[in-house]
Amino acid sequence: MQSDNPTAAILVIGDEILSGRTREGNAHYLSQVLNSIGVDLREVRIVADDEDQIVAAIRALDKSLGGAYDMLFTSGGIGPTHDDITADAVAKAFGTGISHNDEARRILTENWESRGVEITEARLRMARIPHGARLIENKVSAAPGFHIGNTYVMAGVPNVFVAMVEAIQPELAKGRPTVSEALEVLRPESDVAGPLRAVAGEFPDLSLGSYPFKRGDSYGTNLVIRGLDGARVSAAMSALRDRLAP
Amino acid sequence: MQSDNPTAAILVIGDEILSGRTREGNAHYLSQVLNSIGVDLREVRIVADDEDQIVAAIRALDKSLGGAYDMLFTSGGIGPTHDDITADAVAKAFGTGISHNDEARRILTENWESRGVEITEARLRMARIPHGARLIENKVSAAPGFHIGNTYVMAGVPNVFVAMVEAIQPELAKGRPTVSEALEVLRPESDVAGPLRAVAGEFPDLSLGSYPFKRGDSYGTNLVIRGLDGARVSAAMSALRDRLAP
Repeated sequence: MQSDNPTAAILVIGDEILSGRTREGNAHYLSQVLNSIGVDLREVRIVADDEDQIVAAIRALDKSLGGAYDMLFTSGGIGPTHDDITADAVAKAFGTGISHNDEARRILTENWESRGVEITEARLRMARIPHGARLIENKVSAAPGFHIGNTYVMAGVPNVFVAMVEAIQPELAKGRPTVSEALEVLRPESDVAGPLRAVAGEFPDLSLGSYPFKRGDSYGTNLVIRGLDGARVSAAMSALRDRLAP
Repeated sequence: MQSDNPTAAILVIGDEILSGRTREGNAHYLSQVLNSIGVDLREVRIVADDEDQIVAAIRALDKSLGGAYDMLFTSGGIGPTHDDITADAVAKAFGTGISHNDEARRILTENWESRGVEITEARLRMARIPHGARLIENKVSAAPGFHIGNTYVMAGVPNVFVAMVEAIQPELAKGRPTVSEALEVLRPESDVAGPLRAVAGEFPDLSLGSYPFKRGDSYGTNLVIRGLDGARVSAAMSALRDRLAP
């Protein structure tokens, strides 16, 4: 699909995803948000709680560090425990220092004092923020994410991740949202491949996808046409219906 | 976690995942299979139906091409339509040719003849296999996957993916399966960070993870200890319980 939309990647950090214990959901949620605001998500990576892997992925994916994409969103590894190493890895990737951030410390201590929670060194670990980063608000549990370069660093806990995405959404560069039309046909994918290829050739600005399914003993295919121009998508769908007509 | 287990990555190929239309499930399924046979899944990547992205990912992830991991498993893009470009991209990554494979053609035509399905050029596209690859059986819908270098190329349709994983499982290098014990505590993560860090220091051969949750107004944490030696995991869990006792 031809597009001048901003591009993005998501980096999910966490052993619990790779071990199969937890099914990844944050990238799926954010993929839908990005699609709705015209940002082209081009890649998702899931890596372990491993500093070298995290640093390498950030450098490969954030354009401000010579990487591939206009924006990078990370999920996971910013809590208070020893295995939460994302903030340190981000600081290393950006070649900057990391220490307790005054604003983050104020937000956290105010929250703890209001709830009668003791302030401990482990808790204050969540105020460690790379130098030069701006905080991302966390309406759910106070401990902030942060934004540095083109990278947005957010929590892995799903409702906190959602709250942080909502907090940054107004400031993100937007593009033209993708329009899509879908058609379900009760024919096997190989049966519609010819018509689909022909229409794809006539509409090189669009993306035509086919997703086979089996229902009982019947084979069927979902056909999806995506593009930035709704009129072009509709025209391509008409052309496809014509070619599929018996 | 210290381990001599074989390592692996998964490469998921498909615009429909990145657009948010489809929630990824094949990598989650395979992560559990790999965990059960002692293969350490270290990375998952999701990329678009884009030849350059697929080629670059395969070269980065397959050790036989100078990449990072002992095995690479791919999902998606081997169907009959114009956007199914995985087989060509794999051939390019391995610097080999691709053409109709005699065995694949025989499997497909026998299947089609038994079902009275016409043999077309579009359908025969599924018999195109990189030179030097071995076929992977597809008990669901006949069209095979293939294995080349350290890369296993499988279909994206979930029940076909599962069938292909079952077909290759006997031949995969195995390691020592990971053993895990979990403990749910109704205390916030920052409250258990100190004990967790102490036990992690005493058991450097194990992986200790903490996963916070909120239930109503209460904060809680799931603590998970993983390792290759069940006795060590149990000892670490005992030590953690002792440290968490009031």
